[in-house]
Amino acid sequence: MCAQKNIRVGVIGAGRIGKIHATNLATRIAGAEVAAIADVNLQAARELAEKLHVSNVYSDFQQIMNDDSIDAVAICSSTDTHASLMVEAAKAGKHIFCEKPISQNLATIDKAIEAVEKAGVKCQIGFNRRFDPNFKKVRQLVQEGKIGDLHILRITSRDPAPPPPSYVKLSGGMFLDMTIHDFDMARYLSGSEVVEVYAAGGVLVDPAIGEAGDIDTALITLKFANGAIGTIDNSRKAVYGYDQRVEVFGSGGMVSVSNNLPNTSVYSSADGVVSEKPLYFFLERYMDSFIAEMQDFVDVVIKDSPTPVTALDGRKPVVIAMAAKKSLDENRPVRLTEIEP
Amino acid sequence: MCAQKNIRVGVIGAGRIGKIHATNLATRIAGAEVAAIADVNLQAARELAEKLHVSNVYSDFQQIMNDDSIDAVAICSSTDTHASLMVEAAKAGKHIFCEKPISQNLATIDKAIEAVEKAGVKCQIGFNRRFDPNFKKVRQLVQEGKIGDLHILRITSRDPAPPPPSYVKLSGGMFLDMTIHDFDMARYLSGSEVVEVYAAGGVLVDPAIGEAGDIDTALITLKFANGAIGTIDNSRKAVYGYDQRVEVFGSGGMVSVSNNLPNTSVYSSADGVVSEKPLYFFLERYMDSFIAEMQDFVDVVIKDSPTPVTALDGRKPVVIAMAAKKSLDENRPVRLTEIEP
Amino acid sequence: MCAQKNIRVGVIGAGRIGKIHATNLATRIAGAEVAAIADVNLQAARELAEKLHVSNVYSDFQQIMNDDSIDAVAICSSTDTHASLMVEAAKAGKHIFCEKPISQNLATIDKAIEAVEKAGVKCQIGFNRRFDPNFKKVRQLVQEGKIGDLHILRITSRDPAPPPPSYVKLSGGMFLDMTIHDFDMARYLSGSEVVEVYAAGGVLVDPAIGEAGDIDTALITLKFANGAIGTIDNSRKAVYGYDQRVEVFGSGGMVSVSNNLPNTSVYSSADGVVSEKPLYFFLERYMDSFIAEMQDFVDVVIKDSPTPVTALDGRKPVVIAMAAKKSLDENRPVRLTEIEP
Amino acid sequence: MCAQKNIRVGVIGAGRIGKIHATNLATRIAGAEVAAIADVNLQAARELAEKLHVSNVYSDFQQIMNDDSIDAVAICSSTDTHASLMVEAAKAGKHIFCEKPISQNLATIDKAIEAVEKAGVKCQIGFNRRFDPNFKKVRQLVQEGKIGDLHILRITSRDPAPPPPSYVKLSGGMFLDMTIHDFDMARYLSGSEVVEVYAAGGVLVDPAIGEAGDIDTALITLKFANGAIGTIDNSRKAVYGYDQRVEVFGSGGMVSVSNNLPNTSVYSSADGVVSEKPLYFFLERYMDSFIAEMQDFVDVVIKDSPTPVTALDGRKPVVIAMAAKKSLDENRPVRLTEIEP
Repeated sequence: MCAQKNIRVGVIGAGRIGKIHATNLATRIAGAEVAAIADVNLQAARELAEKLHVSNVYSDFQQIMNDDSIDAVAICSSTDTHASLMVEAAKAGKHIFCEKPISQNLATIDKAIEAVEKAGVKCQIGFNRRFDPNFKKVRQLVQEGKIGDLHILRITSRDPAPPPPSYVKLSGGMFLDMTIHDFDMARYLSGSEVVEVYAAGGVLVDPAIGEAGDIDTALITLKFANGAIGTIDNSRKAVYGYDQRVEVFGSGGMVSVSNNLPNTSVYSSADGVVSEKPLYFFLERYMDSFIAEMQDFVDVVIKDSPTPVTALDGRKPVVIAMAAKKSLDENRPVRLTEIEP
Repeated sequence: MCAQKNIRVGVIGAGRIGKIHATNLATRIAGAEVAAIADVNLQAARELAEKLHVSNVYSDFQQIMNDDSIDAVAICSSTDTHASLMVEAAKAGKHIFCEKPISQNLATIDKAIEAVEKAGVKCQIGFNRRFDPNFKKVRQLVQEGKIGDLHILRITSRDPAPPPPSYVKLSGGMFLDMTIHDFDMARYLSGSEVVEVYAAGGVLVDPAIGEAGDIDTALITLKFANGAIGTIDNSRKAVYGYDQRVEVFGSGGMVSVSNNLPNTSVYSSADGVVSEKPLYFFLERYMDSFIAEMQDFVDVVIKDSPTPVTALDGRKPVVIAMAAKKSLDENRPVRLTEIEP
Repeated sequence: MCAQKNIRVGVIGAGRIGKIHATNLATRIAGAEVAAIADVNLQAARELAEKLHVSNVYSDFQQIMNDDSIDAVAICSSTDTHASLMVEAAKAGKHIFCEKPISQNLATIDKAIEAVEKAGVKCQIGFNRRFDPNFKKVRQLVQEGKIGDLHILRITSRDPAPPPPSYVKLSGGMFLDMTIHDFDMARYLSGSEVVEVYAAGGVLVDPAIGEAGDIDTALITLKFANGAIGTIDNSRKAVYGYDQRVEVFGSGGMVSVSNNLPNTSVYSSADGVVSEKPLYFFLERYMDSFIAEMQDFVDVVIKDSPTPVTALDGRKPVVIAMAAKKSLDENRPVRLTEIEP
Repeated sequence: MCAQKNIRVGVIGAGRIGKIHATNLATRIAGAEVAAIADVNLQAARELAEKLHVSNVYSDFQQIMNDDSIDAVAICSSTDTHASLMVEAAKAGKHIFCEKPISQNLATIDKAIEAVEKAGVKCQIGFNRRFDPNFKKVRQLVQEGKIGDLHILRITSRDPAPPPPSYVKLSGGMFLDMTIHDFDMARYLSGSEVVEVYAAGGVLVDPAIGEAGDIDTALITLKFANGAIGTIDNSRKAVYGYDQRVEVFGSGGMVSVSNNLPNTSVYSSADGVVSEKPLYFFLERYMDSFIAEMQDFVDVVIKDSPTPVTALDGRKPVVIAMAAKKSLDENRPVRLTEIEP
């Protein structure tokens, strides 16, 4: 099994998502190992490295770029550093796994994509939900033609609790921060491109979110190139937990997926019939998909095959998010060609 | 139990819906009897009357209006006759149960409402879905505050098969013919008024529907006076049967209702786990609600209490439907004040 | 539609089940009418007759037997009168619908069956659950071979609340009073005969039931002639309501049916995800099956076809119940040949 | 986090279950490491060790016993070696995790237990299903009193495919090989001891199993010390996959758990509404419970707390299985006191 040398991955960023990817690479991903961990917060990097028995720990990511024994990087640092790290990694000839979004700025994204293409390295963006078994099954049924022609797509995506207003201010707004996953999902499931967006929304959960300049509840209508229509509903707060459902309807039938539960228990008493609430949030809900996306990335590097989520896939939801924001501001449908002609 | 004299109802219209109401009145509704049946197609009226042991059969509805022993009428004739029959019945002092919609013209509706109010008779519009146990339960939970403040309302309403193009031409369009039930449901469940509508849609099911000047698939965004947002998705053809679901989400929780099935069987084999398709169409799905609405109407007459679905409730969805049509035509959100300032 | 003269039915017994059958015959069953109602409690008979507009009311059932215009009787009186009324009706040449059980005594049952056979009248026993859409579907899948060879049959049958001890004393015991429906269901679903029974059980719900000489909880193992095995679990008290489920497992797959609910609502809050309790008891749960069994009976009389639940079908569950009682008393498996060699 | 030295575990047996435990210990269990792997099939041990980066590989388990740096052993070899390895490990002062069953012979089990108790080492038996989130939740609700007094326990346990007849011959019979998990589950969930067993069963799946002296289908009635009754149904072949369900019913309510599915998709088409089959077999279904039981074992060793599944817990299901076998052979209920007075 191990004639093949492991892919050596440098993890940049030892925060929440960095910990997840580093741990998975160290213990769950076949064919890979963590070669180094870098974080401007050296202490965080050290703690993670120690736990995972990783020897190379740096405060400066450049040491990873300079290490010729390292095949790939996992960019898990803050969003504003993603694009420049992609450029650096591309220059260093390292394959790239980068967390979403690449950037909140299209020109910046384009530079990163250009660098990746020029270097000819693999680049995969962290839209992990594509690797969730529920959504994969929906995609599969669509691809197999079981749904027929797509008519209506419905995505429900609601968080269990809103982020703090301080986070909201830097987040780029709900569409870029939260709905971006749903925009990617819409493209992934439909197999078609969004051409027009209409967004309705407001501040219904917490006035502090409004004061931070954002909304917390939204209903977005999508029109696709293939004629289908779609709707996304978002809330920053579902008191019953993380609500992640999808429904795809077409000429041949419908497929829907519902939430994952911690167990299948159903308790019947004089007061009613009670089942479990959904898994609380993305760490619980999507852990399997974090593993699956990284395994896919490592396999792509090993086999020199195309990445399942390209840098362009990382760019398109940003355009949709921008159109959604414009639609909300102007209360009218906005075509994506208005964002970039 | 029967010291109380039965309410004597004259049924006008012996078509599909007339048969349902006449049969229910004759056999299922406590405190009521069918006093007469009228239809311009006398043969249809006769067959129905014979089956229900009703002696008085007319081709001219006026004979029902002239019969002082008749307390109420059930107007089940074609849509274009509803408003004038309401006026006639009001003049004759008869209580009115009238199928929806009252009319496709607001001025006509207003004249009918005026006549009803002047006469002081009871008037109930046939939005039967309000009497469905599923939707009643949703309404109840909203009213009890279990959902908290309403944030997002979702209605899925899909027919199993489209009507013939000949019908489509006369139907007033999908919004007035089909979505009107969903517009009423949106008002009923939210307890709030719609103030703005955005409609996306197209011809995805059958080009003949497009040639008849209508659409067959739609996604409608509603904004409510209380700040909530809602979405309705419609299709004229769901291959798996009549799809009638609702979900209400708010600060306190969510309630959803799914389709009714012919039985609870689940068959597990090597090929998968199969349960039943939804009940096929409205006759199967809503039979109980047809009975319940008529029982309520008869009780209202007996007890001299307010009707649960007033003539104004019959008017408002027409306004929403008009706004939706304008929105679709102009591809922009339309405020209801644009329809009537 | 009505060239055919209605089947005229005399209803004997105006108690709970008599009211159900009389009302259904008067209002829901095509091709039938209630010709007369008899009850030793004349007042009860009168009230029911008045409500249903039936003119002929008697305290003496014999007047029904003497009325040549009456085609059939529905025997809804107390259990101890069933067999002799069957004999009388057979002598009078009337078709017979008789509530279960025919009798608690096999010799008495045999006399009734003999009379029926001699007279050549139709005779149907009121095992209404066979007409329930859930159980019919299970039977259909078994008959179609979708389950393959039957291996394991599971019936769960639990009442929401125990009857009063006074009733328990006269009931013939839980097996004859309650489980008898499940014994019939076992035969109906399996399409095979029970050959051996082992019953475990006890008084777990209410000591007063034990003092009345009965049990309130049981687990019964059945062996069938075709080699399959089955289990029935009974309780007199399920706090969450009437629990009526079945599962059939075989070489080709499994089919299960679950409880019917008043509506499909699912309420998700911070406290959990709550759906409705099962319909409370047999009146709510099995109303459709009461209608369906009577319609079948009337159709059988009209078409002169075989009854779907014969007098012999009424006898066999009594034998199984007797074997179960013997098994419980002696704590050993009992073959049905021990009850009648 | 790692001031604490890892628990060093020697894994004995590199077959299917050995691979699972070794892999989990190496990659998933906090506070543990694989110190050595031994298997009489040295090649198998080597392959596993290489994959997990374990240096010490032996064909003779004794080298593990002799290694003072090793704290604990995981006994994953063939059943006939379990008891003697427990004795050896106890003598060597090593904590013991041992796969079930300890032995098919009670005297042999007793010697192993005696050795463990004398040595004062920890000993945990591999009844992994106790660590499954579904069954844990059932247990929790019972322990919290949510079910009230236990009345009826139902376990469904069906394999997707039978083992080869060669395996069947050495398995000790279905009750010791397969039902033993269900007997343990009955004790675990009820919190009470089984006092009497009645087993019905036969060869319905495959005649070759009968020729090998075993059965493949069974229905077992259990009587508990606390008065409750229970039923287990087993099949060696459910064509729809691994069927692992439990239901506990009592004076306060009921809790049931159903199968785990690979995803939550529901596909509705003209042919029906299809959901996924259960996870195929125990590797898929119970992987989480294998991890959880081993984590618990390691934590027990670290914290010097009592093991959650004791050697006695490993013995009792063997006694129940013996009673079940006797019951099947003699077709009568058998009290456990008949197996050991």
